[in-house]
Amino acid sequence: MADDAADRDDGDTTREEAQRLLEDGDLDGALALVATLHPADQADFIAQLDASLRDPLLPRIPQEALAEIIEFLKEEPRETVVDALAPETLGPLLDRVDPDVAVDILHSIGAERSQAVLARMASAAEVAPLLAYEDETAGGRMTSDYIALQRDWTVDQALAYLRRTHPGAEQIFYLYVIDDQGRLAGVVSLRHLVVAPPETRIVDLMTPEVVTVQAGEDQEEVARRVQRYNFIALPVVDEERRLMGVVTVDDVIDVVEEEATEDMFRMAGLVEDESLQRPVVRSIVPRLAWLLIALVLGFAAAGMVSAFEGTIARVAALAVFMPVISGLGGNTGVQTITLIVRSLALGEVELRDMRRILQRELVIGVTNGLVIGLVLALAVFAWKGNTALSVVAGLAMLANMATAVTVGVLVPITLRTVRLDPALASGVLVTTFTDVLGFFFFLGLATLMVDRIA
Amino acid sequence: MADDAADRDDGDTTREEAQRLLEDGDLDGALALVATLHPADQADFIAQLDASLRDPLLPRIPQEALAEIIEFLKEEPRETVVDALAPETLGPLLDRVDPDVAVDILHSIGAERSQAVLARMASAAEVAPLLAYEDETAGGRMTSDYIALQRDWTVDQALAYLRRTHPGAEQIFYLYVIDDQGRLAGVVSLRHLVVAPPETRIVDLMTPEVVTVQAGEDQEEVARRVQRYNFIALPVVDEERRLMGVVTVDDVIDVVEEEATEDMFRMAGLVEDESLQRPVVRSIVPRLAWLLIALVLGFAAAGMVSAFEGTIARVAALAVFMPVISGLGGNTGVQTITLIVRSLALGEVELRDMRRILQRELVIGVTNGLVIGLVLALAVFAWKGNTALSVVAGLAMLANMATAVTVGVLVPITLRTVRLDPALASGVLVTTFTDVLGFFFFLGLATLMVDRIA
Repeated sequence: MADDAADRDDGDTTREEAQRLLEDGDLDGALALVATLHPADQADFIAQLDASLRDPLLPRIPQEALAEIIEFLKEEPRETVVDALAPETLGPLLDRVDPDVAVDILHSIGAERSQAVLARMASAAEVAPLLAYEDETAGGRMTSDYIALQRDWTVDQALAYLRRTHPGAEQIFYLYVIDDQGRLAGVVSLRHLVVAPPETRIVDLMTPEVVTVQAGEDQEEVARRVQRYNFIALPVVDEERRLMGVVTVDDVIDVVEEEATEDMFRMAGLVEDESLQRPVVRSIVPRLAWLLIALVLGFAAAGMVSAFEGTIARVAALAVFMPVISGLGGNTGVQTITLIVRSLALGEVELRDMRRILQRELVIGVTNGLVIGLVLALAVFAWKGNTALSVVAGLAMLANMATAVTVGVLVPITLRTVRLDPALASGVLVTTFTDVLGFFFFLGLATLMVDRIA
Repeated sequence: MADDAADRDDGDTTREEAQRLLEDGDLDGALALVATLHPADQADFIAQLDASLRDPLLPRIPQEALAEIIEFLKEEPRETVVDALAPETLGPLLDRVDPDVAVDILHSIGAERSQAVLARMASAAEVAPLLAYEDETAGGRMTSDYIALQRDWTVDQALAYLRRTHPGAEQIFYLYVIDDQGRLAGVVSLRHLVVAPPETRIVDLMTPEVVTVQAGEDQEEVARRVQRYNFIALPVVDEERRLMGVVTVDDVIDVVEEEATEDMFRMAGLVEDESLQRPVVRSIVPRLAWLLIALVLGFAAAGMVSAFEGTIARVAALAVFMPVISGLGGNTGVQTITLIVRSLALGEVELRDMRRILQRELVIGVTNGLVIGLVLALAVFAWKGNTALSVVAGLAMLANMATAVTVGVLVPITLRTVRLDPALASGVLVTTFTDVLGFFFFLGLATLMVDRIA
């Protein structure tokens, strides 16, 4: 992999020129120009082409170059490119791709086609075992493209081995040391190997304690350990501590980014793989499902208001301040819930901190509720000149904001306790609570004092 | 840096045992036990200690160990630890810390104290220039702890240089090649250096085109390039392309995580450095400021309802469905805006894609609006048995959801156009639009048909 060079301008001008050539029908000229780009930039160029321009181009790209491009393509354009290739072409192509990327692709093309492609791969024996792991686990993220040294080798032997093998191995910075049974015995950084006396034995050079991850563990766990110790790769082992593969730091960055996106999307009621590139019909259904849930929850608020229809019939002005009280309650709840969900995701708080967190948020909610409630009361009085109405609005606001922070803490923490994703505690769930309770406080108080308001 | 070893259980049991010893007053026992942990785990142990236990412990930790612990401490506990140290202690300590961490600390302790500490640092000449860069730039993230080779050296000379110098240099995987003027001429990966014939000249081995970043560029730009090309480090240069430092991938992971947190927090109306560890008073004020804005915006919705107070006085049932219509509009808007903000942040869409995105979201908004509007109309009819009311509610819902997706696209894209952060297009801004317009559609239509509803 050409992983350390590229044009400084991300090849923008080159890509525009290549696009022009392609539109003019000069396939060879475009190919020659694109070939001067970094594979990451070539991938960008391919990704943004219309099918009419891309399809004639693809078969003309040399296999080695296409393999590198595929490694840099994002998921959606990669599927499009891969779909255009027959198993006879795709098999040998995947032999040249990093095993972890090959596995992703084999996962994405369906079981039948995957079998057909695998049958045409020279590296099938290496790649097939990786297929057993789910996408979002350590096993699903690992590559089998690592270097393992024997304990009893010398530094000289290890360097000779490096020269002999794995000329293209991805990001080799740690060298793993295994014993006779293939179990992980230690790790040596390339940096230490290089400066060690040639006759030193690997077993004397290696660090015997190695942080590892089990193949079945979640990718978040991989990311957590790599971040915690500032690693650039993490070895994946089975139950007998046999070395299965390695997850590299570039995948960890992707995991960190994906997990953040997932949390944001879940909180907004979007599925985790929602994207502006997704076909519209595949976006409509999951969003609609979520909105239908929101609609059902919305009727809880409607029911609460309905219970006070008589009061509203007497004082229509109450309806004017309903959205203010429910809205501010929702904003307050979303502030708290966002902070809690993110802090849980980043491992900055644990369940045992719950009491302290609840106290903290209550102090904030009540303080801000007092201020906002007072401002609201003054505004209502200035507008409507009705003392009772302004007192009711202010008190309801205070009560609703105190409720909002409480719900904002309890909902995500309860979800985590029952081992669900706290991010499911989306805005919708919190605002349902704050709507229902906000209307209860406001319209309930107003009903008690209706003779003084009307 | 001991960057490749640790206990497999993150040292949980060891830390609990050390805590017990410390509480029993056995400082030496606790120290000995903690010393067996990975620095990352030692940092965790220190971070969670009460001041009463931590303060006697700190002066007893050997300086070398304390330096490593500091590198792994997160921002908040690091400030607490650093605040407890006098300049006489802190200066020599920072000499042993990675320069980029030392700079972060010097930034955090105020100008006066920073000068006092710097005066006591042996590496002041190396660290002081880094202080000129702002925290969230490439210069602020870079370390001066890299290895530079001369163009005309041989591989053998380079290896000898490696043996001689920088025994503790952080994550050395790329070696940078500079010319006589200190300008960046190329890059060699350690992997390639090791397997090259000893007499090869560096200039013949190096890749002459190097992706770089300017010292003043934003840290997001660093992250974007590292992610794009799967690098594990990125060289930072000045305008003359002189090598200034290197940003390593562990910092890039932090940037990716911080930027995601920042977007989430901004959308929820939290400041970017909000945290559950933050003193309560420092959380109250910024949250309150945001809620006051929300309150002012809330009065826009109140004003709209107020315009139709007469209609509500005749048909109090209208107030029952107001929260359903404004709520669903808000949910729809938040779905769209979250998707757009995140896609812009990840560079998945550009301003020029705006027309396509708006069309796409409108298709989704209108389709879902038709379904949700129909379901609402049926539910209203089933509940209240009023045909006109159910038609008004259904139509208002459709109009509000179409508005919601439009606003959800236009607001963040407008902010980006005027070079503001699209994440400022928070829920509050979108729900203000959907509240105001939702009430306008619903109550306006109801007013037109009031004789058939009442």
